[in-house]
Amino acid sequence: MTDDALPLGPGAEFDAIRAMLAGMGDAAHGIGDDAAVMSVPRGEQLLTSVDAMVEHVHFRREWLDPAELGWRATMAALSDLAAMGASPLGILVALEVSADWTSSLGELASGIAEAARAAGTTIRGGNLSRGEQLSITTTVLGSAFASLPRNGAQAGDSIYVTGVLGGPGAALARLVGMRRPDPAHRERFAHPVARLREGRWLARAGATAAIDVSDGLAADLAHLAAASAVRLEVHLDRVPLVEGVTAMQAMASGEEFELVVTGRGLDAAAFTGQFGVPLTAIGTVSPGPAEVVLVENGARVAPPGGHDHLSR
Amino acid sequence: MTDDALPLGPGAEFDAIRAMLAGMGDAAHGIGDDAAVMSVPRGEQLLTSVDAMVEHVHFRREWLDPAELGWRATMAALSDLAAMGASPLGILVALEVSADWTSSLGELASGIAEAARAAGTTIRGGNLSRGEQLSITTTVLGSAFASLPRNGAQAGDSIYVTGVLGGPGAALARLVGMRRPDPAHRERFAHPVARLREGRWLARAGATAAIDVSDGLAADLAHLAAASAVRLEVHLDRVPLVEGVTAMQAMASGEEFELVVTGRGLDAAAFTGQFGVPLTAIGTVSPGPAEVVLVENGARVAPPGGHDHLSR
Repeated sequence: MTDDALPLGPGAEFDAIRAMLAGMGDAAHGIGDDAAVMSVPRGEQLLTSVDAMVEHVHFRREWLDPAELGWRATMAALSDLAAMGASPLGILVALEVSADWTSSLGELASGIAEAARAAGTTIRGGNLSRGEQLSITTTVLGSAFASLPRNGAQAGDSIYVTGVLGGPGAALARLVGMRRPDPAHRERFAHPVARLREGRWLARAGATAAIDVSDGLAADLAHLAAASAVRLEVHLDRVPLVEGVTAMQAMASGEEFELVVTGRGLDAAAFTGQFGVPLTAIGTVSPGPAEVVLVENGARVAPPGGHDHLSR
Repeated sequence: MTDDALPLGPGAEFDAIRAMLAGMGDAAHGIGDDAAVMSVPRGEQLLTSVDAMVEHVHFRREWLDPAELGWRATMAALSDLAAMGASPLGILVALEVSADWTSSLGELASGIAEAARAAGTTIRGGNLSRGEQLSITTTVLGSAFASLPRNGAQAGDSIYVTGVLGGPGAALARLVGMRRPDPAHRERFAHPVARLREGRWLARAGATAAIDVSDGLAADLAHLAAASAVRLEVHLDRVPLVEGVTAMQAMASGEEFELVVTGRGLDAAAFTGQFGVPLTAIGTVSPGPAEVVLVENGARVAPPGGHDHLSR
């Protein structure tokens, strides 16, 4: 809580807010008025998105410690700014808290704060309510001169993806089965990183469209194909994989928070040199109708079932 | 859904989103990318706030129809912009929906849309998740040249409140007791109106500080006193009341979404002439320490218990 934060009134709700602010430390900035006040850089557009992580729907308590959960919810929301090529301006955090989570609020807040710091932004406001389960609803605010939409893919573009895929899906499959995931897979699940700097680099480098991998590469490509009204052909043998997963498992792995972009002749070596993250060409864009075609050993194969939330 | 909205991908979640977009009609604007893109008017600041309305915590299903609920959640969130003297730029709506609410999503969305239209703004994005109860988390985005903070009240100012108080509290007391509320009180509970134009008028007229009445006038005055480090003295016989409530009941009535402002010599007649809403001087600001003093028949009286959410 910074010096410019306003004093809060009395009451139990405010005690909980104080515990959260203590956990956030200097990552919480100017909290306490009816609305947060920010400045959008002159000439830039405002970009906003909201994302929720709900207990029993998106996660179970035993999978992550509270700080990891806060980190993951925050990075998931920031990933939508990354996919637009935007810089973050601030974050609003709305929590519903069941009784069994009250004592973990400080730790949860510390994970949210750590993610905000890693992204170079601050927590500017929020809301706290009781609820029947924990839910973290994160609003992200950002800005960009020219944002990167979903609907800009052009026939003749290549399709690129950042990072290596499959870790979160593999970890989730083990966790749902009450088994211990591979530590490397768990790390990808517990500590995703929103590709914010990477998204801005790609926008400047001439990417035509982007989406982040949240529902699984196959499903997110379908969103991009629908928005851009193009046919996307992906070669499964080119999809970059974490160790221990198949390409088809990687296609269905959700909550990766890597970026898929389209564009021509993006310089993968320069990208990797700057960020230490691979950028891999995995296919091509051709004229619509909107469709995703997966190719393996020269033959078309059926898409995976896609990322499933818990107990849908 | 307007022409510039992007096509959505397949799946049950998207069917639900389509039902909501149908209910919102032309009040939903440009939805479908990773983030909503808006412009903040040149020279103005961005103001944002997030507010949640959670079933069993803030309301019970039998109290309001789904359209009323959507209206009320949206106006409650917009009220935070009103209290800052801001103009709305757009709204993000994050819903958690339990199975028994799925068929009501269209009607809920129509109420959200009606409130957005009444406020002269649009729904620019959102999120949809399952949950164990219905919750509506609304992010509001607005802008202002000079916003109206909580911490600007000065010794020598008067204290003013818009509208007439006590309706929502009286309605809630009946509803919690499973009794039918007075229709006028129920109307104030079901259809609050965020005082957006009024807030901007008050900011231009020289108001020094403002807060909206969400926790109850007594509690919200305490927040304002704490933020401004001043003593606020309120004369109970001056508090404007709906018919059928006492001043003390009105002081404890929450979710009014009227504005309390401080300032000198605000022109109540001009205000009422313009908006058809009373503006009433109810007390005075003097030097701190922060305190709220209620006076009745010349004697200090104890404050009410304050607004209580359900089953706290």
